Amino acid sequence: MARVLTPQAEDFPRWYQDVIAKAELAENGPVRGSQVIRPTGWAIWERMVAEVDLRIKDAGAENASFPLLIPQSYLQREAEHVEGFAPELAVVTIGGGKELDEPAVIRPTSETVIGEFMAKWVQSYRDLPLLLNQWANVLRWEKRTRLFLRSSEFHWQEGHTAHATKDDARAYARRILHDVYEDFMVNVLAIPVVVGRKTVRERFAGATDTYTLEGLMRDGKALQMGTSHELGQNFAKAFDIGFLGGDGQQHHAWTTSWGVSTRMVGGLIMAHGDDNGLRVPPALAPVQAYVIVVKDGEGVAETAAQLHEELKAAGVRVKLDTRTDIPFGRRAVDAELRGYPVRIELGPRDLKEGNVTIARRVDGSKTPVAVGAVAKAVVEALEADQKSLHDAALAYREAHTADAATLAEAIEAAGDGFARLPWADCGVEGENEANAKGVSVRCL
Amino acid sequence: MARVLTPQAEDFPRWYQDVIAKAELAENGPVRGSQVIRPTGWAIWERMVAEVDLRIKDAGAENASFPLLIPQSYLQREAEHVEGFAPELAVVTIGGGKELDEPAVIRPTSETVIGEFMAKWVQSYRDLPLLLNQWANVLRWEKRTRLFLRSSEFHWQEGHTAHATKDDARAYARRILHDVYEDFMVNVLAIPVVVGRKTVRERFAGATDTYTLEGLMRDGKALQMGTSHELGQNFAKAFDIGFLGGDGQQHHAWTTSWGVSTRMVGGLIMAHGDDNGLRVPPALAPVQAYVIVVKDGEGVAETAAQLHEELKAAGVRVKLDTRTDIPFGRRAVDAELRGYPVRIELGPRDLKEGNVTIARRVDGSKTPVAVGAVAKAVVEALEADQKSLHDAALAYREAHTADAATLAEAIEAAGDGFARLPWADCGVEGENEANAKGVSVRCL
Ligand SMILES: [Zn+2]
Ligand SMILES: [Zn+2]
Repeated sequence: MARVLTPQAEDFPRWYQDVIAKAELAENGPVRGSQVIRPTGWAIWERMVAEVDLRIKDAGAENASFPLLIPQSYLQREAEHVEGFAPELAVVTIGGGKELDEPAVIRPTSETVIGEFMAKWVQSYRDLPLLLNQWANVLRWEKRTRLFLRSSEFHWQEGHTAHATKDDARAYARRILHDVYEDFMVNVLAIPVVVGRKTVRERFAGATDTYTLEGLMRDGKALQMGTSHELGQNFAKAFDIGFLGGDGQQHHAWTTSWGVSTRMVGGLIMAHGDDNGLRVPPALAPVQAYVIVVKDGEGVAETAAQLHEELKAAGVRVKLDTRTDIPFGRRAVDAELRGYPVRIELGPRDLKEGNVTIARRVDGSKTPVAVGAVAKAVVEALEADQKSLHDAALAYREAHTADAATLAEAIEAAGDGFARLPWADCGVEGENEANAKGVSVRCL
Repeated sequence: MARVLTPQAEDFPRWYQDVIAKAELAENGPVRGSQVIRPTGWAIWERMVAEVDLRIKDAGAENASFPLLIPQSYLQREAEHVEGFAPELAVVTIGGGKELDEPAVIRPTSETVIGEFMAKWVQSYRDLPLLLNQWANVLRWEKRTRLFLRSSEFHWQEGHTAHATKDDARAYARRILHDVYEDFMVNVLAIPVVVGRKTVRERFAGATDTYTLEGLMRDGKALQMGTSHELGQNFAKAFDIGFLGGDGQQHHAWTTSWGVSTRMVGGLIMAHGDDNGLRVPPALAPVQAYVIVVKDGEGVAETAAQLHEELKAAGVRVKLDTRTDIPFGRRAVDAELRGYPVRIELGPRDLKEGNVTIARRVDGSKTPVAVGAVAKAVVEALEADQKSLHDAALAYREAHTADAATLAEAIEAAGDGFARLPWADCGVEGENEANAKGVSVRCL
């Protein structure tokens, strides 16, 4: 097979760009830092949305929608928040042909505008907890951008909740962390994330505590896959989210916020992809089984259509490719690039013997299977490959996590994976030193 | 029952505002023309998205995502398009703390940026048709706004397709019109829309033909519920979407665009609502059955939980309300306001005789039903009420559609519904006259 992608070992960032282009996942948009997400890439995100949304609803939060534009003055009410976001704002100064009295910013995140409305909606302790989420686009002007990983506009969900007590807020921020994000990342994305807290330096602007989920990519680098923040009473004080307690007194609420974004698509690519392209975990894959006609011939089209229906009936997300005017080799390469977990190849020769070929993306195996046994074989392959992708990622992580005895050792080991070091042996001074050498303290 | 809403007959626009506030559907946002859609309103939109998205995928289009910001110069490439949208643009002039070299506009619609990418992706007739859709927020600066109906930022889907021939483009624009929009509006929204073409004056800026779906609201006024446009080769020429035909020659493609938006939520409210609030058609309703504990007592909580599970198992979207610390009357009024189709009321007295009460929102009936027969009764009620809402809307429309013999008669009749008049008897001059009297020609 001709080389389609730059090999990972040769140049990982280049491999990443190649996969995105060749699998037709995304392209740069015309305004700097913007991106066009093409159908193959967007279908992956839609599946992420569906799975995360289910879990958010199970955790009791309700979806809503807040405005894209926020009055500039809102951003200035919480001191750390304004400092954190001021350099990244896109500002609308003209609307309907006229200069605006007060400029509006495109939301970089929605704590402020949601805080304003929570203040109206929360009156008494009976209104708490208030558990809101929105799926939205946000914008943070970025100097250096990379598709999915760091783009000016990106898509995400942002959850925002208000609670009567600090304990309740903390418990909810952690519930989202574990029951929504960790569960989704481990069991659907097959990425064995490390879950922990961030250092004061790495916290979200305005948070009192930030929890993070870190995945290890196949270049030995960590990627932040999601975060959940305790905001203490910072936003509640800035936006006056107060309530009458059961004790008859006025109190400020305790708030949280939490989000995952299209950056997870980048994480998925880098955690599982190989030199032939994406490998999408079956539990996530928009196309789990790809029925592909190799060559026309007696009964081929009929059998393909029949297998397509059978697999659909078995609950498999399946796509049928009968484009025999395009060379089979090219279509097979495309299917590998896109990471479809299972390919069912039908040609007249095999079919004469009652067989088709099942090609599995994860281990690269090709096995002849009797037509009548395809549905069962596919379902089993999908389950097995979900597990083997996860186990391979876990083995890789374990092989790339070093228990360091000293800060120097940890910095050395972090060049190729995670290094585990007691915080007592690192501290803020150690963090300074590590940062200076391009190593960040990801997770406590 | 105390009066909660301004009656429709007294002041319809006021009734509309009251319902939106009291059912907690939406509120005005801080930047002029923006809106906050609250969980009850957003859940309705999510159900619309799910149903429309299914049908769009069945029609072969794929979802993608294009950028929020568009270079100002793009808007200027198609003459009618720039004229149509120039007065409504929100312009970003500052990004990342610096004045931008070229200002960017927030998309008012995405024909231009999608045209730019179609030009890259379409090379040969084999790449056609190219069938794309996106779910997105767009922004058109509006002077007078009304929640859901006319807001600066709104949510919608916009489909954009490119075809090899005019006939194919036309057929697809009509397929979307009928198989996606009309089917959804009639069979899910229970709104018997009138489907037709727009006059030249009312067309979309840049279209060669615009098809529309018009619903009749309970104040006798028509509401445009969706549109599908043939764009001819206007955008293909402006953005150079060309392809090598089977004939070996270069051709320009023929494009279409089509959309429905959160305005449909407004249409839903006004087509079915009554003086007690919303009436949501069961096929759409996010909550189809509302199990409500009237008063605690022996076995009440257990039976409520059991019915909740039974209904879920029967495929009914069900919500359980056990908040007996809030007066039952208030909770029942809220359920009416939100338009839940069926309410299952459980109290200790009825339950002693093995009964619960089924209250139906559409006809206002209340019937005692044996606990064991609830699931079946609910499923039947949902089906019957879907049909009766549709039939009532159709009867209303027919009672409010006059066959006019002259333009004067048509203008007169249009004060209270639709007037049907042969276009030959109206024409552009007649359209001028009707417009001057506040009557628009909706549909040919
Ligand atoms: Zn955990
Ligand atoms: Zn039709």
